[in-house]
Amino acid sequence: MYAVEVRDHIMIGHSLPSPVFGPAQGMHGATFTVDVAFFTEDIDAHGLVVDIGLATEALAETLAPLRYKNLDEVPEFEHKFTTTEFLCGHIFTAMAQRVRAGRLGDDGRVKRLRITLHESHVARAWFEGDL
Amino acid sequence: MYAVEVRDHIMIGHSLPSPVFGPAQGMHGATFTVDVAFFTEDIDAHGLVVDIGLATEALAETLAPLRYKNLDEVPEFEHKFTTTEFLCGHIFTAMAQRVRAGRLGDDGRVKRLRITLHESHVARAWFEGDL
Amino acid sequence: MYAVEVRDHIMIGHSLPSPVFGPAQGMHGATFTVDVAFFTEDIDAHGLVVDIGLATEALAETLAPLRYKNLDEVPEFEHKFTTTEFLCGHIFTAMAQRVRAGRLGDDGRVKRLRITLHESHVARAWFEGDL
Amino acid sequence: MYAVEVRDHIMIGHSLPSPVFGPAQGMHGATFTVDVAFFTEDIDAHGLVVDIGLATEALAETLAPLRYKNLDEVPEFEHKFTTTEFLCGHIFTAMAQRVRAGRLGDDGRVKRLRITLHESHVARAWFEGDL
Amino acid sequence: MYAVEVRDHIMIGHSLPSPVFGPAQGMHGATFTVDVAFFTEDIDAHGLVVDIGLATEALAETLAPLRYKNLDEVPEFEHKFTTTEFLCGHIFTAMAQRVRAGRLGDDGRVKRLRITLHESHVARAWFEGDL
Amino acid sequence: MYAVEVRDHIMIGHSLPSPVFGPAQGMHGATFTVDVAFFTEDIDAHGLVVDIGLATEALAETLAPLRYKNLDEVPEFEHKFTTTEFLCGHIFTAMAQRVRAGRLGDDGRVKRLRITLHESHVARAWFEGDL
Repeated sequence: MYAVEVRDHIMIGHSLPSPVFGPAQGMHGATFTVDVAFFTEDIDAHGLVVDIGLATEALAETLAPLRYKNLDEVPEFEHKFTTTEFLCGHIFTAMAQRVRAGRLGDDGRVKRLRITLHESHVARAWFEGDL
Repeated sequence: MYAVEVRDHIMIGHSLPSPVFGPAQGMHGATFTVDVAFFTEDIDAHGLVVDIGLATEALAETLAPLRYKNLDEVPEFEHKFTTTEFLCGHIFTAMAQRVRAGRLGDDGRVKRLRITLHESHVARAWFEGDL
Repeated sequence: MYAVEVRDHIMIGHSLPSPVFGPAQGMHGATFTVDVAFFTEDIDAHGLVVDIGLATEALAETLAPLRYKNLDEVPEFEHKFTTTEFLCGHIFTAMAQRVRAGRLGDDGRVKRLRITLHESHVARAWFEGDL
Repeated sequence: MYAVEVRDHIMIGHSLPSPVFGPAQGMHGATFTVDVAFFTEDIDAHGLVVDIGLATEALAETLAPLRYKNLDEVPEFEHKFTTTEFLCGHIFTAMAQRVRAGRLGDDGRVKRLRITLHESHVARAWFEGDL
Repeated sequence: MYAVEVRDHIMIGHSLPSPVFGPAQGMHGATFTVDVAFFTEDIDAHGLVVDIGLATEALAETLAPLRYKNLDEVPEFEHKFTTTEFLCGHIFTAMAQRVRAGRLGDDGRVKRLRITLHESHVARAWFEGDL
Repeated sequence: MYAVEVRDHIMIGHSLPSPVFGPAQGMHGATFTVDVAFFTEDIDAHGLVVDIGLATEALAETLAPLRYKNLDEVPEFEHKFTTTEFLCGHIFTAMAQRVRAGRLGDDGRVKRLRITLHESHVARAWFEGDL
C-alpha cells in the first residue's frame, strides 16, 4: 500500500477537569505537531497518492478552527476531555469528511487515513482508520 | 485503531560473540531510545487510550533492570545474542506482562503493543504483537 | 512481527512536466532520506531480522543508480512522473529483487518491505508490500 | 569551550493580550521542549562539565512552577507577555541562581548558560548569557 | 543574547560543474531545510525578539525566487557554484536587506543573523554574521 | 562566519569507575551521534568551506579506533574517565591534527572546529575551539 504524509501544527489551551489527569487538570496547553497520512492501493496516472499541495491545504483548513484556541470554549467539545488521542479521532473525522467530499480531487482512491499528534518529544498518539 | 506512544532510553554494554557480527563481536555498547506504543480499539470515558503517566512509569520499570547494565552479565540473557531486535522482543514480553497484570489500570482494552528501539540515527528495530 | 529499518539518502534532480504539478513542473530537485524496513515473523538463531550491515549495503547498491542523477535522463523512468511515491514503489521493486536473490543471506524469512522517502521536514511517502 | 546540554519539556497555557499577537491574543498554549546548555572552559578531574544527573534535576526543579500551569495566573508574570523568548530569559535567571547557589556541586566553573525553547517543529528561541 | 529561529524549505535543482565535485558535477538537486535565526541584545516591550509571523513571511519571500528552481538558470548565480554554503551566504544577504529595510517592523534591534541549510540528515551548513 | 557540519556515529562500551557516576560506574555503553563542524571566514573559489566528502572521510577515519570498542581497553584512555565531554575533546584533538596535516586539502582556511556528541535524545555535549 502507498501512503503520503503531510505535517502542520497547532498551539491550543485546554483543561482536563478530572482527578484522573492529576497535575494536568487545570488550564494549560500544548503544541501538537499534526501528521496526516493518506493511504491508497496504487498511485494514479501522474504518479500520485494525493496532491501534496491539496493535502496540505485540506489539513490547514481542518486545523483552522483549533489554531490558537482554548478548546474548553469550543462548543463542539463541550463535556469532552480533549486529550491527544481524542483530538486524533476528531481530526480524523474532519479530514475524512473532506476526503469524501472530493476536497483532494479524489475519485475514491483514498482508502485509509492516519492522524498522528506529537504532544512532546516523548509522547504522541494516533488514530488510523478506513474511509 | 487508536494508539499512544511514550519514550525513554537506556545505555547498555554487551558483546555479540559470533563471527556473524564482524566488528561488533567484542564488548561495546549502545544507547537505545525506546518507544512503546499501546493500541486500543477505542478511547475510554476520559478520552484515553492509556494514562500517559502510568505508561511512562511502566516503561521505566521495565527498563530498570537493563539501565547502565552489561547485558553479558544479565542471567536472563545467558546464551542469547542481545541484538536490537532481540531486545525489542524481550521488552515486549515484559511490557505485556505489566499490561496483563493491570499495571496500566487496564480493563483489557489494550489489544496490541509495539516496541521500537532506535540504536542510531540510521538504524532501528521494532516488534509489534497482539496481547 | 519483527522489523529492522536502515537509512540512507539521495540527492536528485527531475522535472514533473504536467500542469498538475504547478510550480514543480520545471527542473528542480530533492534530497530524499530513504528508510527501508525489513519484516520477519521471527528472529533467527543469531537474534537477527536481517544483518544490518548487509541491509545497509543492499540499500546503498539499490540507490547507486539514482545518486546525484537527473531522473529525467534515466532511461528506466522515460514517460514516468518521478514523484516521491513513484520512487518508493521503484525502490521497493529493486530492493525486493535483492532480497529474493538472497542478497541479504536470506532464507525466505523476509516477508515484507516498507520503503519510506522523506522529501522535506513536512512531507514524506512510503510503499509497504509483501514479498 | 566545553558544553553539556540536557532536555525536558513543559506544557503551559497563556494568553498574549495585545493586538501585536494577532490570532494568538486569546487563551491558548504550547509544549516547550526546553534545552539548557552549561558551558565551562575545561572539564574537571572526573571528565565532567557538570554532572548530567544534577543538571537534569536542576532543570526539572526550575520548570516545576511552570509545568501544566496557566501562565496568566502566575503572580511573577503579571503584566508580562509570556512569549517564548521571555520564558527563555526567565528560565535563564532561575537556572543561573541554582548554578550560583552551588546546586550543581559547582565550584564556579560554569561560565555561561544557554536556554532554548522549541515551541514547534518550525520555531524556537533561546537566550545565552554569562553567569 | 536572545534569538528567535524560524524554518522553511526549498527544493531546487542545480549542477556543480567542476571535477572538484566528483559525482555531483551533473544536474541533480536538493531539499534544503532553511533555518534563519535573528539575534537581539534584548526583547522589546511585547517580550519579542522579532514577530515570528513577520519573520516567517520574510523568510518565505526571500526563498520564493529559489523555490522549485533550476539554480543553473537563475541569472544572479551565473558563474557561481551554488553549494550549500554559498546559498547560506546568499540567503543571509537577502534576509539582511529585508531586516535593514524594516521588513520586520524593526527599529535596528536585530544585530545578527544566522542562516542554516540542512541538505540531508548527515550534512548541513550555515553562515552567521552581524548586520 | 561560514560552517559545514557532517555526521557519523559510534557504538562503544566503557565503565566510569568512580562513585561520582552512580549507576553508570559499571560496564555499560552508548551510541554517540557525532557531528563535526568546520568554520572558515569565507568560502573558496568553488564555493566551499571544506569538501563534504573529504570531511566525512576524515571523520570516519578519526572515529575508526573507537568504533565498536570497549574504551576501558584503549591504551590512550588509561586512567581517564571517558565521559561524553572528554570524548568531544579527544575527537577535537584528533580532527584538528587531520586538518592541520592538510587532510582536507586545506590551505589554512579552517579556523575553528566544533565536535558534538549526542548521547541520547535528552543529552549531548560539545567542544568548540580554534585551530
